Amino acid sequence: MSTTPGRPSQSSRGDESSTHESPHIVWHDHAVSRDERQRAMGQRGCVVWFTGLSGCGKSTIANALDQLLLERGAKTFLLDGDNIRHGLCAPPERLLADHDEAFARRFGLGFGAEDREENIRRIGSVAQLFAAAGLITLSAFVSPYIRDRQRVRELVEQAGQAGDFLEVFVDTPLEVCEQRDPKGLYKKARAGLIPNFTGISDPYEAPEQPELRLAAGDGRTPPQLASEILRQLEARGILQA
Amino acid sequence: MSTTPGRPSQSSRGDESSTHESPHIVWHDHAVSRDERQRAMGQRGCVVWFTGLSGCGKSTIANALDQLLLERGAKTFLLDGDNIRHGLCAPPERLLADHDEAFARRFGLGFGAEDREENIRRIGSVAQLFAAAGLITLSAFVSPYIRDRQRVRELVEQAGQAGDFLEVFVDTPLEVCEQRDPKGLYKKARAGLIPNFTGISDPYEAPEQPELRLAAGDGRTPPQLASEILRQLEARGILQA
Repeated sequence: MSTTPGRPSQSSRGDESSTHESPHIVWHDHAVSRDERQRAMGQRGCVVWFTGLSGCGKSTIANALDQLLLERGAKTFLLDGDNIRHGLCAPPERLLADHDEAFARRFGLGFGAEDREENIRRIGSVAQLFAAAGLITLSAFVSPYIRDRQRVRELVEQAGQAGDFLEVFVDTPLEVCEQRDPKGLYKKARAGLIPNFTGISDPYEAPEQPELRLAAGDGRTPPQLASEILRQLEARGILQA
Repeated sequence: MSTTPGRPSQSSRGDESSTHESPHIVWHDHAVSRDERQRAMGQRGCVVWFTGLSGCGKSTIANALDQLLLERGAKTFLLDGDNIRHGLCAPPERLLADHDEAFARRFGLGFGAEDREENIRRIGSVAQLFAAAGLITLSAFVSPYIRDRQRVRELVEQAGQAGDFLEVFVDTPLEVCEQRDPKGLYKKARAGLIPNFTGISDPYEAPEQPELRLAAGDGRTPPQLASEILRQLEARGILQA
């Protein structure tokens, strides 16, 4: 039988765990549990959720952390624009290549409030699955709204345990981000070419109690900042010191 | 720099790989490559995609395979209704708990043609990410349309290599599935209570060239059928024999 409590009945869209009878024996479904998966993986999965302005260094620090974790033999995955914006959370114009227009308009994600909410909802759902698979899951998106991040935290902790979600606030001043402007996005936003741009024409809601706040404009290198996160993971027992 | 070629520019919704200058050094982003991840994982990731009618045994066989793989020390994850329908592909009524009505109506997935297409698109995108993470990824959904499954195959193979996608057709006759009817869904569908029910009021398009076809009504137990898939994984070099 399924080990998931309170599972509602489903139509043929999903699938169902069940008992199947053969002429000879009765086989009972038994899902591999999260604990079994984690034992196989040799670690407990979790989500390290980076948040901060565009250009603040989230992705760079996440990549540096990913490498440090790899060197430690940890099993990781990094969710970022590279692997999410082309697939799961693709914009409408990208979906048009394979789907019709009504489909692309409904499910493609632009920059409206609803679209941003769904963007973080999908990414959060996937991050939770990766954590359940036993991976140290890094997520690097602006994720500007407190409420959206709070929903992901609840999802991850309810499916696992308190402490499985670490919010890392990369707190680089807007001026520094705008000066860096690695892709010229701030320039475009100031020129009115990008609507709803966080920090310019859309708010960034800073975390009130992040597990870690990195003052990233203070001259430390990304690997130094990543090391600080690593120490947090050790302090929390996610990694062996 | 990012290792992803041809990456388009992005707004603040996603994030960007870039070069950041500190007063002392220039740090270049380097994403951990798929090869590095797979070496750390000790295996190559792939997608084993089960397809077949509701009640055909997909989920049961996938769970049995998951257990066999665990015993072999393989790193796996199973995507099925249990972990997808409550989160990433939740129906509108479930999204209403946390989101407003317009949001739930737009992004929640019901049983219309568009909804089913998006359901498989999201699941396929996630399966591809799990394969990229180096996991043997099992997916157990009816996935009745050839075109939707073909898109997932292309996505997985383009992001990896040919052979990373194994389609397993669990070919149990409709009569057997309907007789089993573990959740009473066929009964409800026959009574007209479930619209667009695959096999009853919506077509099932059988794979023309699946990597494996399991005649699942022939008296073999789920572990026996799962063993057949295991042998395929060995034959294809995904598992050590």
